[in-house]
Amino acid sequence: MEVWRIDTANQKFGKEPVPAHWERLGGRALIARVLLDEVNPTCDPLGPNNKLILAPGLLVGHMLSSCDRISFGGKSPLTGGVKESNAGGTTGLKLVYLGIKTLLLEDAPKDDRWWVVYLNKEGATFEPALDLVGLGVYATAEKLLERYGKDVAIALIGPAGERLQLAAGIQNLDKDRVPSRIAARGGLGALMGSKHIKAIVIDAKDGNKPEIQDFESFKAAQKRFTKSLMEHPQTKIYADYGTNAMPGMSDGFGGMPTRNFSAGHFEGLDRIRGETMRELLLQRGGEAETTHACMPGCTIRCSNVYADENGKTIVSPLEYETVGLLGPNLGIDDLDAIARMNYEINDLGLDTIDIGAALGVAAEAGLMEFGDSKRAMELIQEIRQGTVLGRVLGNGAAVTGRALNVRRVPAVKGQAMSAYEPRAIKGTGVTYATSPQGADHTAGLTIRAKIDHLDPKVQAEVSRMVQINMAGYDSLGACVFAGNGFAGVPETIKQLIEARYGWEVAENFLQELGKTAIKLEREFNRKAGFTAADDRLPEFMRYEPLPPNNSVFDVSEEDLDHIFDDL
Amino acid sequence: MEVWRIDTANQKFGKEPVPAHWERLGGRALIARVLLDEVNPTCDPLGPNNKLILAPGLLVGHMLSSCDRISFGGKSPLTGGVKESNAGGTTGLKLVYLGIKTLLLEDAPKDDRWWVVYLNKEGATFEPALDLVGLGVYATAEKLLERYGKDVAIALIGPAGERLQLAAGIQNLDKDRVPSRIAARGGLGALMGSKHIKAIVIDAKDGNKPEIQDFESFKAAQKRFTKSLMEHPQTKIYADYGTNAMPGMSDGFGGMPTRNFSAGHFEGLDRIRGETMRELLLQRGGEAETTHACMPGCTIRCSNVYADENGKTIVSPLEYETVGLLGPNLGIDDLDAIARMNYEINDLGLDTIDIGAALGVAAEAGLMEFGDSKRAMELIQEIRQGTVLGRVLGNGAAVTGRALNVRRVPAVKGQAMSAYEPRAIKGTGVTYATSPQGADHTAGLTIRAKIDHLDPKVQAEVSRMVQINMAGYDSLGACVFAGNGFAGVPETIKQLIEARYGWEVAENFLQELGKTAIKLEREFNRKAGFTAADDRLPEFMRYEPLPPNNSVFDVSEEDLDHIFDDL
Repeated sequence: MEVWRIDTANQKFGKEPVPAHWERLGGRALIARVLLDEVNPTCDPLGPNNKLILAPGLLVGHMLSSCDRISFGGKSPLTGGVKESNAGGTTGLKLVYLGIKTLLLEDAPKDDRWWVVYLNKEGATFEPALDLVGLGVYATAEKLLERYGKDVAIALIGPAGERLQLAAGIQNLDKDRVPSRIAARGGLGALMGSKHIKAIVIDAKDGNKPEIQDFESFKAAQKRFTKSLMEHPQTKIYADYGTNAMPGMSDGFGGMPTRNFSAGHFEGLDRIRGETMRELLLQRGGEAETTHACMPGCTIRCSNVYADENGKTIVSPLEYETVGLLGPNLGIDDLDAIARMNYEINDLGLDTIDIGAALGVAAEAGLMEFGDSKRAMELIQEIRQGTVLGRVLGNGAAVTGRALNVRRVPAVKGQAMSAYEPRAIKGTGVTYATSPQGADHTAGLTIRAKIDHLDPKVQAEVSRMVQINMAGYDSLGACVFAGNGFAGVPETIKQLIEARYGWEVAENFLQELGKTAIKLEREFNRKAGFTAADDRLPEFMRYEPLPPNNSVFDVSEEDLDHIFDDL
Repeated sequence: MEVWRIDTANQKFGKEPVPAHWERLGGRALIARVLLDEVNPTCDPLGPNNKLILAPGLLVGHMLSSCDRISFGGKSPLTGGVKESNAGGTTGLKLVYLGIKTLLLEDAPKDDRWWVVYLNKEGATFEPALDLVGLGVYATAEKLLERYGKDVAIALIGPAGERLQLAAGIQNLDKDRVPSRIAARGGLGALMGSKHIKAIVIDAKDGNKPEIQDFESFKAAQKRFTKSLMEHPQTKIYADYGTNAMPGMSDGFGGMPTRNFSAGHFEGLDRIRGETMRELLLQRGGEAETTHACMPGCTIRCSNVYADENGKTIVSPLEYETVGLLGPNLGIDDLDAIARMNYEINDLGLDTIDIGAALGVAAEAGLMEFGDSKRAMELIQEIRQGTVLGRVLGNGAAVTGRALNVRRVPAVKGQAMSAYEPRAIKGTGVTYATSPQGADHTAGLTIRAKIDHLDPKVQAEVSRMVQINMAGYDSLGACVFAGNGFAGVPETIKQLIEARYGWEVAENFLQELGKTAIKLEREFNRKAGFTAADDRLPEFMRYEPLPPNNSVFDVSEEDLDHIFDDL
């Protein structure tokens, strides 16, 4: 495999061999390594000295179930620290088919031109994107598919990324060519926008599946992994309800963020929970699908297609985080309204979590009434129109809070929390506080651990273990739900890696990879100016009790400060 | 003297003796000490755990020329770090007459009530301020003077402070009872607003002048100091032109911030320089004054009264920083327009530096044309109206830049630069970068040093020296211009302190005090999460050349990182 470098200032391109110390890293771990090697940690994240990094995980390229994720990274425009955000879809797979270990977009144009970067076996070419500037994600993808054919993968940004908005993500085509697989968090869409790249089109038609050193062993391990995954009870639940199986569980623990994180139980829960959604979609029929795969080969199929009462698609997928942040967090219990907002936010190229949280903060600032989905949609339209309020909101919850002088802002390191209240699910609070990525449930969700989620003493250990595992999965290219499969047959990770690459790796390769990733990330953050003072939840969560448990976040600072002492 | 504590949650009051290790500190140094002793450095600056601290300097109370300044402090809502901001007027003097070494406003109300805190010899009482909420600074001061009589001192906030806007300052009456002496920087007005204190009224009629241990010696030293001050050539210049003597000098070095810090020379300079202003005011007559004292007893009288063509006051004073940030920085060369904007910003209770810089950033974001003073005034009116744009702008340049996605933002640690371009006057750039206070010329202006201001190698040493001296003066209560007097007879500082307090202090007491202040401030900032990465100018200043010198800021990071190694 090779390193591909793209000079966005001069529209040039080059290939290089992979440096030895990058070889055994992939995805999230590789991004941290590249950042430390090549990006000044104190640079302006939207200036010419930052780099946008694409890095498929180590297991990408084989249609292993839920293991073809693509990681995007760079210094985060939102947090100012290390950033990795990954997505499903086909981008990872096609990059690997072109032999790309990592793709680096460097420097920044000094003029106003915008580009599509087209990648094929020959290399990269720059093609003018003037006709695409300002277009939403869905229309852009359609035009690009017309121009480049149905078999390409595409990573692209919407208007928000073009405008350097800090909650902008990077979208990717799913297996049905819908550009809804978003590397959403941390403002990487703005980073791509700062390079004036509207889209990266990956044409792998002359590419090759990656070589496998020991094909038999690989197949055997794959079979065991797939079987374990299929047998896991959670897999069936996700196939039926998608991630929106979660509301009942979150709310049951009193941890459903409600009305801008001021309560943990939502009275309208039954109207938005996954069970309700499933029944509704089955009843509506038409284009509605209760189960759907985002990547070719995925056997979990946690995705869905949310259709209106005529069976016409509103958005695909509708996921728990979006339901949580645009629903209870705004006091809204109308799934159709949530789905329509989701489509608009997707089309703008924004992160539904940070935008949902920003709307909650805006409601607290008096700009909407909680529960008013019409007004919420108007606020989203302000983002599209580029009004001053829209510009503010498109930067996410932390900037919105600062701009509008709101004290209750659910964010860590400038990034909004996901739909798990840290005063009720305290282990996830530890993750929010201590992850080098900023608040993010995908960095280490603890809600399924068999612990008392209110006991402050047992959270750090659980969060630490889950964070390390997740950093490992994010470096393999494996989806969090693939972990359910690997958990039953952990030795298959070693087997798959050894068979694929011909290396010899440790039994606990997953954890070693995860620890490496977190260690490198913390080093980058330290150089960028982060300290223990940044590993904190917003102070109000320590003194403002959360109903119905009336709990505060009381995990000791000692626990937060020493969680990664022995990485 | 005593420590007075005010509990703003319960409207309670108490007095305590001064702890021994606070005794030999005053003003800025004392604020840093109190913060380290009593405020959690990671607290929310606008939450109940921050404190607003008032601390007169060590020499306050004697009407020594330009030595009665009052320091306000706390954890800065704007920078998140240590904050001291001082002002002239009568607040310092009257606090000392009541025997107050430091006044601490603690905790925060849980309801919507607002208060005037009334201080007299008996202590503090809380009086309802409902009739004052929403009023501008000038109207508020007028009402308070009616209510409490003409002899009180007042520290108060405007609508911006009530709304917790991050560029809000705290205003103080000058000797003519005009509330224009503003402790402007770092958002301390928002901190006062978070305590629901609209004004602090200080009635010292039963108070006493502070005891002087050796009256003769004090008088002798005072005489020598005053003589030295009066003989300094700069004193005459400031009496004639006020601080607006500076434009010619700044622009001459190519260091006049022009059109949001994109150039260092302003073509309209001659229409705004101090010489032009003086002639204009002399010609207009009426209420216009070219020289005016802000504090009783000041012999420099650098202030002025800016009147319109009918001789009616527009604003008093009009100072260089305001002229620079609202003039060239916005491409505006109309002194009357600048004076009118200044009045409005004062009345809102905001810092003209951070607001001027915010308007420059807004212009860069396309919200006004450079040079359009009518539009600039409209933007200021948006702040008054509390529109979304107004809310953003009232938080200063850094928040405005982040909210509107502007890359060229002249701020350090979240605080806007003053009217000295750091790429042309690089020593002041070192001060901006390394001062624990954030960008602030009053922390160490180097423009008068006899050095090549473009030579990166000689700046750190000069900045260090001036920063230490200024931290000393800020702890004595001495105005920067008093320094011109002390510079000729430095031994008078030791004499004054020893005569006043009966202590024995070192020859270099000024520098010792300054070093103590900076050391404590850096310790607080370190605990608040600041690192060397925060001691940096905005990255664009390192690669974007500034005309006419086409220089960049190229003082080495090594120099920045080690400037305070041997405090």
